[in-house]
Amino acid sequence: MTGYGQFCSMARAHEALGGRWTLLIVREILCGSRRFSDIRRGIPRVSRTVLSERLQALVYVGAITRNDGPHGPEYGLTEAGQELQVILGALQQWGDDHLPHPDGPSMLRRRSGTGGSPLHVGYIDDNGREVTLPDVRMIPAGSAPGR
Amino acid sequence: MTGYGQFCSMARAHEALGGRWTLLIVREILCGSRRFSDIRRGIPRVSRTVLSERLQALVYVGAITRNDGPHGPEYGLTEAGQELQVILGALQQWGDDHLPHPDGPSMLRRRSGTGGSPLHVGYIDDNGREVTLPDVRMIPAGSAPGR
Repeated sequence: MTGYGQFCSMARAHEALGGRWTLLIVREILCGSRRFSDIRRGIPRVSRTVLSERLQALVYVGAITRNDGPHGPEYGLTEAGQELQVILGALQQWGDDHLPHPDGPSMLRRRSGTGGSPLHVGYIDDNGREVTLPDVRMIPAGSAPGR
Repeated sequence: MTGYGQFCSMARAHEALGGRWTLLIVREILCGSRRFSDIRRGIPRVSRTVLSERLQALVYVGAITRNDGPHGPEYGLTEAGQELQVILGALQQWGDDHLPHPDGPSMLRRRSGTGGSPLHVGYIDDNGREVTLPDVRMIPAGSAPGR
């Protein structure tokens, strides 16, 4: 797994998670799939071999757990894996806004509980208030030695 | 570009943006690079051919613009491209938290202006207030016909 050492955290996260299927696998586990066959049912185009490899890589980066269950291995999300929900939501939102499907969005982001109100993903300050994009700056930290 | 028709918006966004280098290219343009050579300087490991292809693909999905400048083509972000900042920030944040580099984060997320306070990426309700992950639900919309 080369590249995890690169300086830019976005590049490292992208390298760890950017493989075809990886985030879709996280989505399936987030939506409740625990067993290999259930995860695969949600992503029918992935081969067994590739799904196996991707699950191993997700265990390796600490995003998912693998435990022996009564019917074979069961997968779950670690706390780090739960936090991938922010990346998944950001991708979904961009896809819904800019590559919309004629049937509308496939997943809805809602607050838990009855009558859960719609949510979106964005930038937030330390007081828990939204900061809109024109007020966001990304600043390279120090002099980056390569990336 | 197969797969843009698939039902899940996350899958479509991932297919459009998930190619190796694509989001790093967006990062370079976001940080002010306009010309091919400047973008390439920020991502030295990408070949000219691949960078060319990725820039074309980003124009195709409507994330960047390409205009003739006095010294050759110049690239810029569309409004859709600006919104990729949310995905970039979410990836950076996860990388900084879970795949940290010994030298610390490479990019800082700050509010514009003097003494810009730190920002993070997360879920927000319609009143502009943060909603933490335990209160976030992702709900499959209707009966998804394939993905």
